Amino acid sequence: VTNGAQEALDLVSKIFIDPKDKVAVEVPTYLGAISSFRNYQSDFLTVGLENDGMNIHELEEKLRKMSEEEREKIKMIYTIPNFHNPAGVTLSLEKRKHLIEISQEYDIPILEDDPYVELRYSGEEIPSIKSLDKNGNVIYMSTFSKIFAPGMRLGWIVADEEVAKKITVAKQGTDLCTNVFCQYLANEYITSGAIDRQIPKIRKLYKGKRDKMLEALEKYFPEGCEWNKPDGGMFIWATVPEKIDTEKMFPEAVKENVAYIHGAAFCVDGSGHNAMRLNFSNADEEKIEEGIKRLGNLIKKKLGN
Amino acid sequence: VTNGAQEALDLVSKIFIDPKDKVAVEVPTYLGAISSFRNYQSDFLTVGLENDGMNIHELEEKLRKMSEEEREKIKMIYTIPNFHNPAGVTLSLEKRKHLIEISQEYDIPILEDDPYVELRYSGEEIPSIKSLDKNGNVIYMSTFSKIFAPGMRLGWIVADEEVAKKITVAKQGTDLCTNVFCQYLANEYITSGAIDRQIPKIRKLYKGKRDKMLEALEKYFPEGCEWNKPDGGMFIWATVPEKIDTEKMFPEAVKENVAYIHGAAFCVDGSGHNAMRLNFSNADEEKIEEGIKRLGNLIKKKLGN
Repeated sequence: VTNGAQEALDLVSKIFIDPKDKVAVEVPTYLGAISSFRNYQSDFLTVGLENDGMNIHELEEKLRKMSEEEREKIKMIYTIPNFHNPAGVTLSLEKRKHLIEISQEYDIPILEDDPYVELRYSGEEIPSIKSLDKNGNVIYMSTFSKIFAPGMRLGWIVADEEVAKKITVAKQGTDLCTNVFCQYLANEYITSGAIDRQIPKIRKLYKGKRDKMLEALEKYFPEGCEWNKPDGGMFIWATVPEKIDTEKMFPEAVKENVAYIHGAAFCVDGSGHNAMRLNFSNADEEKIEEGIKRLGNLIKKKLGN
Repeated sequence: VTNGAQEALDLVSKIFIDPKDKVAVEVPTYLGAISSFRNYQSDFLTVGLENDGMNIHELEEKLRKMSEEEREKIKMIYTIPNFHNPAGVTLSLEKRKHLIEISQEYDIPILEDDPYVELRYSGEEIPSIKSLDKNGNVIYMSTFSKIFAPGMRLGWIVADEEVAKKITVAKQGTDLCTNVFCQYLANEYITSGAIDRQIPKIRKLYKGKRDKMLEALEKYFPEGCEWNKPDGGMFIWATVPEKIDTEKMFPEAVKENVAYIHGAAFCVDGSGHNAMRLNFSNADEEKIEEGIKRLGNLIKKKLGN
């Protein structure tokens, strides 16, 4: 049990990464993961994202073309399989199996970061990579932040015994243990059955918000914009025409009281300048519609320039 | 606000220590600090402890004799000024001032680890090193663990703005933030005045236990044993005759249902084999007497061998 999922990322980085090592990451990928890996002076091997998750063929090709020495620098494959942050996509069952084969062939562990698994609003559940792996090559991590309360700072790691022991030692040096009081609260939340009543409520609430945002995007975003339709989670990844820089546009959006995170922040290869992450979990449906309308108008105005 | 004082140690280590750097530490010093520094591949400059705290003259001599290059490797001076863990001693006012001068002269920051400051049972309060320093060269850290509850995992760092900013960035990469719910509880504990009623109770309770342990040591420990009389905190540091190895003796003590931590665990220079840290905060007074009696008998038996 860790101090939120962010500590799980930090501990795994601490035990796997030496300076100049590399982590294979999706482009785009989670900001907090980039920051954890960079803290340990990691470089990156970048892999594209498709509608059914990481481009496994690209990963395989890149690994195959490397010298053995280069390959030994790759210490982890980091992936967010369900309702990707920021991209919203989900890794298909077939690709999960393929990823395990690659991990096996090149002896590179997979770090499976799965905070949104309980937040599915459509489509069928897919088994975790961890559950499909027979060789102890997958480190699974998740959190209570999306299904209990983020302020509790409760995350967890499931790993092979040898790795788990190393993480435990690192954890003791980092902060001895995770707050015990909040662990008791989480235990009560689970054993009382409250969690089983709460998750369907969260799903219903967020599903309505997702549908509203998709509807509003269709209605207000101009031609040349694209976005995906996530089956769950909290995020939609939208791209706008090339000529718009979403980082530069951000202050204007804030003036209109709309916020997003610009795409480049999630991309370690310098791409993403014309993308943005939209979060539909926070605002109510009315505000979502109004926000997307304002953002759509701003984009139209930019394109008209 | 950190996830316990251990995280404060980890974050400060993270921003100051590169592999092969050195931290100046007392011998003996806190186990958790050793483990934090080692996590970042630190080496050590060791300094002895006297009854009035760190041997500042030894530190000064060692620094003076170093080449500039060697000195640049020293990234911190780590000290526990009040009721040292494990040694129980307190750094005198004069030495605190002297330490600030050294820190100033060689431009080495001081990390002041002060978890026990509120647990004074005798003698007069001494101002913190941080409060005596005018140059922002001291990083002060403490914790709620000894005055609220350890399971809350609440510690804090006070540092110069520039250092504080770096720590904040490191903290975000490590675990985003400290559990918010427990921070609310601590806030209530302070603002309601409960803390002001609780600390005198803790002091009274622990003072009785300290006195009982000192009395029992006098009564049951054989000649050739020595120990200090701490003005506060939770620990007494006892040395036994050279021929006894406290690490080897430990299993026999456990058989008698008495525990301590063997001295060598606290000493990064390989010393401490005939020392032990005794903790008087946990057991009740009756058990303290019985425990010290059993330990005294065991030592006598060993010496008789």
